[in-house]
Amino acid sequence: MLAVRLEQYGRMPVVAEVPEPELQGDDDVVVRVEGAGVCRTDLHAFHGELSDVFPTPLPFTLGHEVAGVVAEKGKAVRGIDVGAKVVLHPMMTCGVCRACRRGEDQRCTDNSFMGLAVDGGMAPFVRTTGRALVPLQHSSDTQEVAPLADAGITAYHALKRGVTQLGSESVAVIMGCGGLGHLGIQMLRAMSDCTIVAVDPKEEARDLAKSVGADYVAGDDVADVVTEASKGEGAAAVFDFVGEGDAPTLSVSLLGTQGLYSAIGYGGTCSIPTIELVLKELRVQGNMVGTYQDLAELIALYERGLLQSHVVRYPLAEAERAFADLEAGNVRGRAVLVP
Amino acid sequence: MLAVRLEQYGRMPVVAEVPEPELQGDDDVVVRVEGAGVCRTDLHAFHGELSDVFPTPLPFTLGHEVAGVVAEKGKAVRGIDVGAKVVLHPMMTCGVCRACRRGEDQRCTDNSFMGLAVDGGMAPFVRTTGRALVPLQHSSDTQEVAPLADAGITAYHALKRGVTQLGSESVAVIMGCGGLGHLGIQMLRAMSDCTIVAVDPKEEARDLAKSVGADYVAGDDVADVVTEASKGEGAAAVFDFVGEGDAPTLSVSLLGTQGLYSAIGYGGTCSIPTIELVLKELRVQGNMVGTYQDLAELIALYERGLLQSHVVRYPLAEAERAFADLEAGNVRGRAVLVP
Amino acid sequence: MLAVRLEQYGRMPVVAEVPEPELQGDDDVVVRVEGAGVCRTDLHAFHGELSDVFPTPLPFTLGHEVAGVVAEKGKAVRGIDVGAKVVLHPMMTCGVCRACRRGEDQRCTDNSFMGLAVDGGMAPFVRTTGRALVPLQHSSDTQEVAPLADAGITAYHALKRGVTQLGSESVAVIMGCGGLGHLGIQMLRAMSDCTIVAVDPKEEARDLAKSVGADYVAGDDVADVVTEASKGEGAAAVFDFVGEGDAPTLSVSLLGTQGLYSAIGYGGTCSIPTIELVLKELRVQGNMVGTYQDLAELIALYERGLLQSHVVRYPLAEAERAFADLEAGNVRGRAVLVP
Amino acid sequence: MLAVRLEQYGRMPVVAEVPEPELQGDDDVVVRVEGAGVCRTDLHAFHGELSDVFPTPLPFTLGHEVAGVVAEKGKAVRGIDVGAKVVLHPMMTCGVCRACRRGEDQRCTDNSFMGLAVDGGMAPFVRTTGRALVPLQHSSDTQEVAPLADAGITAYHALKRGVTQLGSESVAVIMGCGGLGHLGIQMLRAMSDCTIVAVDPKEEARDLAKSVGADYVAGDDVADVVTEASKGEGAAAVFDFVGEGDAPTLSVSLLGTQGLYSAIGYGGTCSIPTIELVLKELRVQGNMVGTYQDLAELIALYERGLLQSHVVRYPLAEAERAFADLEAGNVRGRAVLVP
Repeated sequence: MLAVRLEQYGRMPVVAEVPEPELQGDDDVVVRVEGAGVCRTDLHAFHGELSDVFPTPLPFTLGHEVAGVVAEKGKAVRGIDVGAKVVLHPMMTCGVCRACRRGEDQRCTDNSFMGLAVDGGMAPFVRTTGRALVPLQHSSDTQEVAPLADAGITAYHALKRGVTQLGSESVAVIMGCGGLGHLGIQMLRAMSDCTIVAVDPKEEARDLAKSVGADYVAGDDVADVVTEASKGEGAAAVFDFVGEGDAPTLSVSLLGTQGLYSAIGYGGTCSIPTIELVLKELRVQGNMVGTYQDLAELIALYERGLLQSHVVRYPLAEAERAFADLEAGNVRGRAVLVP
Repeated sequence: MLAVRLEQYGRMPVVAEVPEPELQGDDDVVVRVEGAGVCRTDLHAFHGELSDVFPTPLPFTLGHEVAGVVAEKGKAVRGIDVGAKVVLHPMMTCGVCRACRRGEDQRCTDNSFMGLAVDGGMAPFVRTTGRALVPLQHSSDTQEVAPLADAGITAYHALKRGVTQLGSESVAVIMGCGGLGHLGIQMLRAMSDCTIVAVDPKEEARDLAKSVGADYVAGDDVADVVTEASKGEGAAAVFDFVGEGDAPTLSVSLLGTQGLYSAIGYGGTCSIPTIELVLKELRVQGNMVGTYQDLAELIALYERGLLQSHVVRYPLAEAERAFADLEAGNVRGRAVLVP
Repeated sequence: MLAVRLEQYGRMPVVAEVPEPELQGDDDVVVRVEGAGVCRTDLHAFHGELSDVFPTPLPFTLGHEVAGVVAEKGKAVRGIDVGAKVVLHPMMTCGVCRACRRGEDQRCTDNSFMGLAVDGGMAPFVRTTGRALVPLQHSSDTQEVAPLADAGITAYHALKRGVTQLGSESVAVIMGCGGLGHLGIQMLRAMSDCTIVAVDPKEEARDLAKSVGADYVAGDDVADVVTEASKGEGAAAVFDFVGEGDAPTLSVSLLGTQGLYSAIGYGGTCSIPTIELVLKELRVQGNMVGTYQDLAELIALYERGLLQSHVVRYPLAEAERAFADLEAGNVRGRAVLVP
Repeated sequence: MLAVRLEQYGRMPVVAEVPEPELQGDDDVVVRVEGAGVCRTDLHAFHGELSDVFPTPLPFTLGHEVAGVVAEKGKAVRGIDVGAKVVLHPMMTCGVCRACRRGEDQRCTDNSFMGLAVDGGMAPFVRTTGRALVPLQHSSDTQEVAPLADAGITAYHALKRGVTQLGSESVAVIMGCGGLGHLGIQMLRAMSDCTIVAVDPKEEARDLAKSVGADYVAGDDVADVVTEASKGEGAAAVFDFVGEGDAPTLSVSLLGTQGLYSAIGYGGTCSIPTIELVLKELRVQGNMVGTYQDLAELIALYERGLLQSHVVRYPLAEAERAFADLEAGNVRGRAVLVP
């Protein structure tokens, strides 16, 4: 079959012939891929920036946002049948480490991250385990669903943890309205009655933000907008989907008393004098991917019509064009490869 | 009466004659002081380091850790009588701002901090409001209790918020075993079944820590001790009573997955790359003083015999000696002035 | 002035001449009433059913859901001026008891309930204290707002406490879609992404429920509807605004594993075998009125356009007709008296 | 091998020869039993009271509180080796149902309860799955540990959930100081700084309660003792290990404002008028067994010396005597069979 392979760091991935995956263990599943999201993490990967975290031997197949249909399953896989429509949690988790036992499987100490640590789903078929499958309704669009597997749950995980300190008088800021941010606004709208301020330098992104539920949008004028929206109280929470450049410092500066800085994007540094931490009693929280339960809840949100996933479809053979468009900032919503 | 007055920044406070305080409003109370704790914040004050936060006209009377007996009360003061033994919350709070209404009176937007923004309790008498009084049992020692009013509740406030994420398998680190830390260890011991690692460069402080309930003590070897105590998992929480120098960075480095850095001391900077926040899903929380409810709970802990407050008594007239001893690091526990 | 007076238990209240209220203490406020909601509790009151809980000497003025304009204020009242539009929390609270200090002022141990323990607001003027006032925007309709002061916050208080265990996969049941229920549905819609099943024997009430955001409505078929909506899991929470007759038992029977029965209405009995509590790990929670903070958050919700309050206006002089309509079940939404 | 078999409802179990268990699946483990606790649930079982909940074909081997050494393991069992000392969670759980995924494996929808639904551990060997094993230190006494597997975690699960609403001013009541209660007192002592009132009709049980950490003990005078201990506020929580007879009603009557009734024992009925639920804003919570994580935390508590498990050892061949002693109320602490 033809798959999108990372062959060399610093070069675009290529579409190359590889053998189809096969079941290896009793818990394995082979999924026929219908859509595979293209993520900024894929760019980081082929630029070699993740080679420390994932020292995976090259070449391997990219793709960690995958939805499709169960093609084959091992004999120990329960609760899901061949032919079922599914979305794949990006991590294969062990189910027995302490983190998995606590329901925090995104912290699994024996995990394999699909498309980064093992072959991923930018291919007609991918192998994963039964534990990674979240079933979909027949009516769900697997290409719309694919980006929820990573972009979606990462946003959801952070928002769900932060939403407990938001009420109808609170202002929450969404920093960055791209692939994750435009989904995050909708989730926050569904989960909370707070006022949402969405921040992005691009007007087009701000328009999208407004159309999916932001109460206010802002660019350079964010400090003023937050002051107005919060009647001078400052933000109760900033969800930072950027995490690099000025974003962390700017985010923290927007917080009011006991405000929460929730880090999702990364690349920069969060630096706060302890006197400021103390006087304002600020909080900071880092977030990574999300749990299986997060993904299941997110799919329920989508299937109940409360979440619009904006996707741009590319044939798998044109993966290179999709990467180039993403890198150039020319994708509105999320790019999805179709095998 | 004779009071400890801050007359000039950069100079030791002096003991000088001032008029006795009188009731001004219906909510006021005059307390006959039996003990006034000497705090590192007093040093910061007369060194002029707090003149921005508290731009109080000089001279004024220091003292924000006060216990004594109600001498006189305004007609609107309910629930406490003249002659009652009391400890004073250091902040006079308004009771009607939103923070007070939520029970977060340490965030009162219309507060007066005793001994920093208005005349304090290093004097035979001090004026406060009825809202600031926490009643004491007859058997309580007001000189032992006085330091609980600030050192005590600041520690308690931070620990109570952090303790919800500690269990019998968790390691919590107390960074700094001085005036706050030695109280904090006892509170944590009473509130949680976690393993406590107490850190201090001084052997004497470590001995005190051990004697009041720390499971492990550490100096330079803290990383190894935490690794051993946590079986390699890292600390679930670090309560940083130092907050300056290397302490914030060291504290964060000790944290395991989803660990909490709780800042109480201040002066330095907490700086964390967002990639580290994200990959480890770290949390940070700043803490300032505590609520009235915190102080009441802390007094209950003391009165039930679960909290030993180590104090060194000085006559009020020898305040200068107390300040000098504190500055030189020669006070074991807390210095208390006795009028 | 003319006021609605409860003169004798068992008889309809009458409209009678009484002196205008005057400021008595420095914390007092006199409010010119623009709207006073008519509540089922008023019926209970003049039927004498509350004479044990509120043994108030007759006659007195009814009315505990009041909004209007500040007419006069005592010298200690801060943060609000004469002429300001306000809604009144129904309880005058002390601000210094432990419950008030914790922010649980609905548990104030020294409260006066307006219109039940002291003269209320079914009159052109009413006296309360500054602590009870929540400011309104100029654009707010005081007659729409009045019912939020009791019907509204009672629902909000219960929902806000319960919503933490609801997610996108959860089914929540609103039992009773009358004065409280129709507000409750909207609040739950704003605060949570759960599926809402609204239950009422009357078709008109079910239609209203559907129009304000219920996903499903049910009458006698509620068990089947919950089973379908929850895919057989049962309800995650039932908010029982009825609380009498079969409602408690029916409510509990709808719960799934670890489900919450939240009691708001009263009159009946909640009876659960301990084996059922244990095997299903059920939870029960009682709720009474709400806090000042709850009311402020609810007003924010209303002022942001997320809450429609359906009211039927009656001139104060026609109070008797309003009571009769309510008793006969002929009020759609909430009756409000206009002085 | 010789095992304790339930052959006929209404008759004492008998010690009879059965084949040794063998591995059946890749996840299976055979454990050599060193101790098996005798539980009141065993009495219920052979009296036939659980035949609806567990309609297991007779005969089968009893025993759901088991500790021992891993004798043999399937090839898919990771993280534990043959020869390791272990305690067994009483439920074999699936690891993939939604409850397991959330970390609430005690709610597993595909579980097998050892010694009730499948052959248990009152035998020299027992089969379970790798998921059920919690490793023990070499120094741990497996016979002391065995009762923690059910009596222990059931108490722990309830206390851990309830402890979040207890502080230094709270009174918590332990209703029943037998096998579960004497462990519960110690856990509560370790996890909370509340005041503990232990209630039991038997003086010997009260003496044990006092010796393991209760602040107060009570029999018929419990209402007075709680009033005194709580200064008239009532109990913040009652943990009811009895759950039958008068216990639920008595427990609820002891609660103060917003108090929690936590049901662990069962057999009776919890019946509360909704007016009382509402006026006092009471809470109720049912609890069943505990999670794997609960058991791991409890073992940590035991291995750190914070929990004394009082056991009386009987040779397996004398099982009948152990049952008779338990039924007659003649076991102080917990009876444990030693194969």
